[in-house]
Amino acid sequence: MARLVVIGGVAAGMSAAAKARRTNPELEIIVYTEEKHISYGACGLPYYISGEIEQESRLIARTIEQFAAQQIKVYPRHRVDKLNPASQTIQVVSLETGEQTEVSYDSLVIATGASALIPPVPGRARPGVFKLRNVEDGMAIRRYIEEKKPRSGVIVGGGYIGLEMVETLHRHGLSVTVVEMAPQIVPNMDEDMAALVQQYLIDRGIQVFTQEKVLALVGEEVAANDNRAAGDQLRTTLDAGPGNAAVDLVQGKTAVDLVQGKAALVQGKAADASLTRPQEMGDIGFSPVRRVLTDRRELAAELVILATGVIPNTRLAQAAGIELGVRQAIRVNNRMATSVHGIYAAGDCAVATHLVTGEEVYIPLGTTANKQGRTAGENAAGGNAVFKGVVGTGIAKVLELEIARTGLTERECLLKNISYSTKTIRSKTRAGYYPGAANIHLKVIAEKPSGRLLGAQIVGYTGAGKRIDVFAAALTLGAKLEQLKDLDLAYAPPFSPVYDPILIAINQFF
Amino acid sequence: MARLVVIGGVAAGMSAAAKARRTNPELEIIVYTEEKHISYGACGLPYYISGEIEQESRLIARTIEQFAAQQIKVYPRHRVDKLNPASQTIQVVSLETGEQTEVSYDSLVIATGASALIPPVPGRARPGVFKLRNVEDGMAIRRYIEEKKPRSGVIVGGGYIGLEMVETLHRHGLSVTVVEMAPQIVPNMDEDMAALVQQYLIDRGIQVFTQEKVLALVGEEVAANDNRAAGDQLRTTLDAGPGNAAVDLVQGKTAVDLVQGKAALVQGKAADASLTRPQEMGDIGFSPVRRVLTDRRELAAELVILATGVIPNTRLAQAAGIELGVRQAIRVNNRMATSVHGIYAAGDCAVATHLVTGEEVYIPLGTTANKQGRTAGENAAGGNAVFKGVVGTGIAKVLELEIARTGLTERECLLKNISYSTKTIRSKTRAGYYPGAANIHLKVIAEKPSGRLLGAQIVGYTGAGKRIDVFAAALTLGAKLEQLKDLDLAYAPPFSPVYDPILIAINQFF
Repeated sequence: MARLVVIGGVAAGMSAAAKARRTNPELEIIVYTEEKHISYGACGLPYYISGEIEQESRLIARTIEQFAAQQIKVYPRHRVDKLNPASQTIQVVSLETGEQTEVSYDSLVIATGASALIPPVPGRARPGVFKLRNVEDGMAIRRYIEEKKPRSGVIVGGGYIGLEMVETLHRHGLSVTVVEMAPQIVPNMDEDMAALVQQYLIDRGIQVFTQEKVLALVGEEVAANDNRAAGDQLRTTLDAGPGNAAVDLVQGKTAVDLVQGKAALVQGKAADASLTRPQEMGDIGFSPVRRVLTDRRELAAELVILATGVIPNTRLAQAAGIELGVRQAIRVNNRMATSVHGIYAAGDCAVATHLVTGEEVYIPLGTTANKQGRTAGENAAGGNAVFKGVVGTGIAKVLELEIARTGLTERECLLKNISYSTKTIRSKTRAGYYPGAANIHLKVIAEKPSGRLLGAQIVGYTGAGKRIDVFAAALTLGAKLEQLKDLDLAYAPPFSPVYDPILIAINQFF
Repeated sequence: MARLVVIGGVAAGMSAAAKARRTNPELEIIVYTEEKHISYGACGLPYYISGEIEQESRLIARTIEQFAAQQIKVYPRHRVDKLNPASQTIQVVSLETGEQTEVSYDSLVIATGASALIPPVPGRARPGVFKLRNVEDGMAIRRYIEEKKPRSGVIVGGGYIGLEMVETLHRHGLSVTVVEMAPQIVPNMDEDMAALVQQYLIDRGIQVFTQEKVLALVGEEVAANDNRAAGDQLRTTLDAGPGNAAVDLVQGKTAVDLVQGKAALVQGKAADASLTRPQEMGDIGFSPVRRVLTDRRELAAELVILATGVIPNTRLAQAAGIELGVRQAIRVNNRMATSVHGIYAAGDCAVATHLVTGEEVYIPLGTTANKQGRTAGENAAGGNAVFKGVVGTGIAKVLELEIARTGLTERECLLKNISYSTKTIRSKTRAGYYPGAANIHLKVIAEKPSGRLLGAQIVGYTGAGKRIDVFAAALTLGAKLEQLKDLDLAYAPPFSPVYDPILIAINQFF
């Protein structure tokens, strides 16, 4: 019986396993994941932390038992340390027992995901400083908020996750500040649209500082030298200990807990899959975070969220000689095949093709991970599926505001030397006279002189964001504005003005 | 100076006038309309009646004064009685003074709209029986509800307007019954989807009777003969009086008010543009409606809404020798030109081209009226605009439910002998774990064996309906399902499951 091994147990990995099973009922399917939780909706974490989703179990799409019922064997807390394409084997270690096994495969899907990119800021391992990547992170943040009742929160990074966490912290009653290094928040939108988001946040009492660098996360007044010495000591321990164990253990502890910390560490009980080397933790401060020091000011911060992007987990693939692409993500073709025969990759560790430019891009998103995983799984099971690519669609909600984009931004057009024209309009989400009619800002970008649609961006209230899907579909179909100007979009007062904002924006070009 | 005359002052007419002005600043532009109100959002009437929109003035997009400021002269309460293409003249009568004028034109836009199709049911002119077509209707219904406080309402006709009025009457606390002659409500959707709407209404305490015919609208116990005699008397008066004056005057009056009624009538103070001949009122009952008699039962009804469709107002055009098309609507090409040179038609009085079948259709909707009006106005002013057509998109909200459709239904495919396959799914409007995630039912129809998308229908809760726009765009672009199966639709938990329902439905075909 042929064996498929999947490395990674979240969106791409479990999609691959499930689709492989549907494709080939005979296949042996084994999934290894470093994490305890599998098949969870990572995008739901901000709403779990806010308490809108009560139990973390609600985020789990399917359990290990449910997969087992489909003859998909899932090994949580197992790390794949080595991949040998020549012998078609992997080396697996149990993070519980330390036991190592060599496992052979006939086909392999790499779905190792991405890790939070933690900026090298002193104090980043203090209690109260969190990244948000997996269920453990979410549980730790919620627990910290419930137990410590922080009154102020600083979010480092103004992308989608940062903005979603603005809502989360605001719901918990924290005074919230966003610090973004770039000249604007929502860096994947144009400056003019991002400015609308920023103004909205400010109006809602959120502090936003752009073009500002975080220098240090400062704790309670402890003698700095003692603190540093303790940090050095732990770092030494960590270097010697099981490679993975790190932050979860240390967070929530003070300097006096260090000895217990060491003990737990040696037993390898605490781990954070995405921080694989203790060196990455930087100066370890053992007192909880109290302030954030930037290059412009000092901010009160009893909680800090680091939302500064991700990097693909591709060390394993790289070490095995698999070709990497843009942003060091695994290069795949439209069948999700890597450069090595029989090995597929999918999700946040892999590249995708941008259907507007034809270029290789790295845009890690849950929805793409699912599609790529399904494609990889089908092909790894002997099928022949194709995933053509993405058009760069993204959406987020922050408090009442909806933010969405697809295709190329003006900035991207400039960078790529694409000749374009652009129009921005303000309209209403519903008929002006209908209750709840609210602003929607829509920016459309088209190629010059062809008139081909290149992209769109939306900032607005309830009902605004998902309008981006019309543009996403039109981009995929290679539409020109001329084909879109009289679209028969649905109209009734609760849903739209008589001319939908989409039509108003497109008609600006004529 | 060339002169454009526009007949009709609502969506199509005023769009034509406004666009003509933008196209040609020199043109003399005159608009005649039988109604008092111009440029109003007829689709907003249910929400005005419900009180969600407080003042009827909120429904007015632009006033006569605002048009005057653009050198567009609007004559309300003026009826065009005759159109003479040979001499390029029209005959206009003031409904206020009775004065007749002959007016010449260089180009003409006919935007006479449509009239409510009133079924020939005895008692249809009783107080408490209403159609819903224009602002006067809306004001009369709201006034009646506020003053008479009816406890029960029967809506005859289960199309969009009927369903919107379910919500309106329900908000006013009436017990509501829908009576539909066809075997299903929402006749422009397939039976299976309509059944979901019907079940929802029943669950919400609305009575729904299909395949049931209204036989009579019965009033309070008055001697039937007296009543009939009074009716005959008034009918005679009406026949002799200014043709238009009718129902508004009579409604809300009892038989004893007849003399005053006559007096007002002679002064021509009351009019209902869409009921142009008093004969159409049928047996006039002077006591308010109390019961609806159907072929199956008797229903309490202190208010009756007749929402049984519309007919295009094309007598003027027909008399002038202008070619009519399907459903007796004015035939136009994609420039909105009629069969007579220099004469354009737009809106609810005109046909459109269905972009999926290429056939001529009559689908009178406000959004199409605006687009056709704009096209007609531009061309009548010397421009060269094209309106390619519609794909049959429609949407309505009834209480919490959203209903939408586009393209062809299964029934339409059968009628047209188009080979098709269809899939229906149930999914969620948001991520399953996100608060407010609710059901969405989506039906997709595709051509066999080409795989070309033919249509889609949606029934679901908040956020469901406008998803139809993706299908509307895809239909316009002639997409095949294969091109749509991996659409990069926007995903975040507040907006969608990780696979949007659109993708789930399309992927059922593969």
